[in-house]
Amino acid sequence: MTLRVTVWNEFRHEKTHEAVREVYPNGLHEPIANHLREQGMEVRIATLDEPEHGLTDAVLAQTDVLTWWGHMAHGDVKDEIVERVQKRVLAGMGLIVLHSGHFSKIFKRLMGTSCDLKWREANEKERIWVVEPGHPIAEGLGEYFEIPHEEMYGERFDIPAPDTLVLVSWFQGGEIFRSGCCYHRGNGKVFYFRPGHETHPTYYQPEVLHVIANGVRWAAPVPGPQVVFGHHPQPLEAIPV
Amino acid sequence: MTLRVTVWNEFRHEKTHEAVREVYPNGLHEPIANHLREQGMEVRIATLDEPEHGLTDAVLAQTDVLTWWGHMAHGDVKDEIVERVQKRVLAGMGLIVLHSGHFSKIFKRLMGTSCDLKWREANEKERIWVVEPGHPIAEGLGEYFEIPHEEMYGERFDIPAPDTLVLVSWFQGGEIFRSGCCYHRGNGKVFYFRPGHETHPTYYQPEVLHVIANGVRWAAPVPGPQVVFGHHPQPLEAIPV
Amino acid sequence: MTLRVTVWNEFRHEKTHEAVREVYPNGLHEPIANHLREQGMEVRIATLDEPEHGLTDAVLAQTDVLTWWGHMAHGDVKDEIVERVQKRVLAGMGLIVLHSGHFSKIFKRLMGTSCDLKWREANEKERIWVVEPGHPIAEGLGEYFEIPHEEMYGERFDIPAPDTLVLVSWFQGGEIFRSGCCYHRGNGKVFYFRPGHETHPTYYQPEVLHVIANGVRWAAPVPGPQVVFGHHPQPLEAIPV
Amino acid sequence: MTLRVTVWNEFRHEKTHEAVREVYPNGLHEPIANHLREQGMEVRIATLDEPEHGLTDAVLAQTDVLTWWGHMAHGDVKDEIVERVQKRVLAGMGLIVLHSGHFSKIFKRLMGTSCDLKWREANEKERIWVVEPGHPIAEGLGEYFEIPHEEMYGERFDIPAPDTLVLVSWFQGGEIFRSGCCYHRGNGKVFYFRPGHETHPTYYQPEVLHVIANGVRWAAPVPGPQVVFGHHPQPLEAIPV
Repeated sequence: MTLRVTVWNEFRHEKTHEAVREVYPNGLHEPIANHLREQGMEVRIATLDEPEHGLTDAVLAQTDVLTWWGHMAHGDVKDEIVERVQKRVLAGMGLIVLHSGHFSKIFKRLMGTSCDLKWREANEKERIWVVEPGHPIAEGLGEYFEIPHEEMYGERFDIPAPDTLVLVSWFQGGEIFRSGCCYHRGNGKVFYFRPGHETHPTYYQPEVLHVIANGVRWAAPVPGPQVVFGHHPQPLEAIPV
Repeated sequence: MTLRVTVWNEFRHEKTHEAVREVYPNGLHEPIANHLREQGMEVRIATLDEPEHGLTDAVLAQTDVLTWWGHMAHGDVKDEIVERVQKRVLAGMGLIVLHSGHFSKIFKRLMGTSCDLKWREANEKERIWVVEPGHPIAEGLGEYFEIPHEEMYGERFDIPAPDTLVLVSWFQGGEIFRSGCCYHRGNGKVFYFRPGHETHPTYYQPEVLHVIANGVRWAAPVPGPQVVFGHHPQPLEAIPV
Repeated sequence: MTLRVTVWNEFRHEKTHEAVREVYPNGLHEPIANHLREQGMEVRIATLDEPEHGLTDAVLAQTDVLTWWGHMAHGDVKDEIVERVQKRVLAGMGLIVLHSGHFSKIFKRLMGTSCDLKWREANEKERIWVVEPGHPIAEGLGEYFEIPHEEMYGERFDIPAPDTLVLVSWFQGGEIFRSGCCYHRGNGKVFYFRPGHETHPTYYQPEVLHVIANGVRWAAPVPGPQVVFGHHPQPLEAIPV
Repeated sequence: MTLRVTVWNEFRHEKTHEAVREVYPNGLHEPIANHLREQGMEVRIATLDEPEHGLTDAVLAQTDVLTWWGHMAHGDVKDEIVERVQKRVLAGMGLIVLHSGHFSKIFKRLMGTSCDLKWREANEKERIWVVEPGHPIAEGLGEYFEIPHEEMYGERFDIPAPDTLVLVSWFQGGEIFRSGCCYHRGNGKVFYFRPGHETHPTYYQPEVLHVIANGVRWAAPVPGPQVVFGHHPQPLEAIPV
């Protein structure tokens, strides 16, 4: 069954910052979408400045996994759309949160914490280590991979402890970071993946794209039980008087 | 050091439902507060209809652990107070969420999920099993304890998998429930504890009070690192050019 | 890619107990193996009384996932074979431990605990609830399923807290049990699944077979990093003197 | 109640390697024991070359928490003593495994994995970050602390994912490591803490000693339920015929 992925990008930096446009002339969603298409997935793009941010009920209903990149305009995402996305995740849709998406409304809402962290732009090297090698998101990876120049994100990362921690980053400047974090939320799954600063060509790097594709496959909906919440006046077993 | 606990109660049922007033004439916070005082804790009461719901900045600043019971008026809790409580939890305050508090704004916000469940009022027996006997919240308990008559809460309980699952309930009518759930959130800790329907004398039962007191002690703030989030332009190590 | 499964059965009860032979005339591995074959898997049988318990190096090398049922003769499994299986799991092979396999040498060795529990044979009803509906092992299940007559297993089950708890059982006699438990161990994955007493036709029940097949698929090896342990005298980064 | 701690040291390097004796003339257990005594704990020393390795039934019965350092002679620890220690842990005793103790028989047995890792002796700097600041083991720590010169331990560390991950190390040479790992095993608790190579004065460093003392307090036995395993022929509830 073909996975249907919606790649969501804030898509503002690319229009306003020359340095970003040089790296991602058509938006940083482009290399991500291209790679997922090459993997046989059906990919749609959605961006902040479209009506309903491109995330209408119809679009979400046809989305198995949503990837999310945002940074400078988290506050412009309408609360009702955030609510809508959260509901879809709880109903089973996968969500891949990328890099600065850690501060998006949707990630903060699904985590329940500030999702704050330390950061620095110093073009430093990042080395991402696999700490759970049997996890599907580690498929096809080596023991680590390096990104030659990235923004630093450092601990303490204010998230709930992941259900599964798959990747941990080492930074040249002295920090570490939980960079690949898996969560179940409702019937859905969430994967946070750290790399992807807008001025670096990170989303052209094969290992990074590979992890995103693995994350999408892992987060794909499982047709499990349809839970019926609420009042169940009838016991399943007779209750002795 | 004396633990400072604020016992928060919605305190509406007791004023409007005769059946509840008969069981808890002075509010269901009373037996909880009394027990915690007997344990040597410094206890304050706060209720929904006080200004700022009794949860002013000053009160929260002097609260190590907050216990929360609400049911019929979750919607009346002001969002700004919810935000304030969340910030205090992330800063280290403990939070004990009781029974129907599963649907409180603060619990849903800290969990990021719907926190929905199945329920039934059939006066059935609940048997609460300890599944993590070395956890501080299991201190002093037997292998299980029973509550003769309680409201049923059944799975699927739409919460993130607890960091530690300590208690699981068996219900006469055929359901099970994750009844004692521990979470780290920010520098704070959250304990959800299932029992406590307002028409049953559950909060007079010694084992129930014992678990609440254990929960309060477990959730007490730890004077750990004061995290400094945000921009750290200066690397800790020299970055080779 | 076709999954290669080895269904291991102690296969002693079926030869010595008439009551068991009546239910499973060709061994309780038969209905399990048949179901997995119907799912398109390549299935091999191995039993205790074969040379090397049917688990030669060659067999294990060609096994993606091993299922394990044992009960009356755990002590007859040779330590060297246990060691061999453990190594294969740590190298990536999946392991599905069924019912009384909780007391097998291999499960105790991989868990590090006694794996003890409470039990009773009273032909009682078991109702298995899904508590993590988005997990692959819950695929295709309803909110719960029932087994009309089973042996009871009750908590405290002395296992490490599972990485993911998927299923919890309710028993008519008053106990609960963590019945579907997922673990990463090394590069491999382990799934413990409770049902399957030898005198009940449990392994003919569609939901039970379905969970086993889901477990096999979840536990299939992931071609992740080949970890090189040990001495790495050469740092990846120059260490300032 | 005074915590009773047994500090176990292999105590071979100190007798045979001049470089180690210079750093720890009376054994590396000495500074650890001294610090725990200063914290008001009752401390006993036990070493490999004593009868029963100093871990008689009587000693273990009076030990709340055992700390373990071993390296060159793991194989000399008798299996029956390992079995005895495991039983005491499962019965509630705390265990603090230090540094090269990762390869001890007792740690491997309690983890069920190889506990292997990468290592290098290059006198490099280690920076240990707190990733779970509300955990009791983080009490009194800053956001990180540094050890100027240590042996490197790097991932992949072949352990089960910790129940709680508290500390993660950054190494100058480019690796990271899960350095503070908490586990429940049976009624007992296990804390693995990475630092402590025998040629470095690590166990004189205040932060290291502080973490060990925090670990001991966290791992102290909880007088929880005494579990009765095995046959329970009598159901707690009447089973309908």
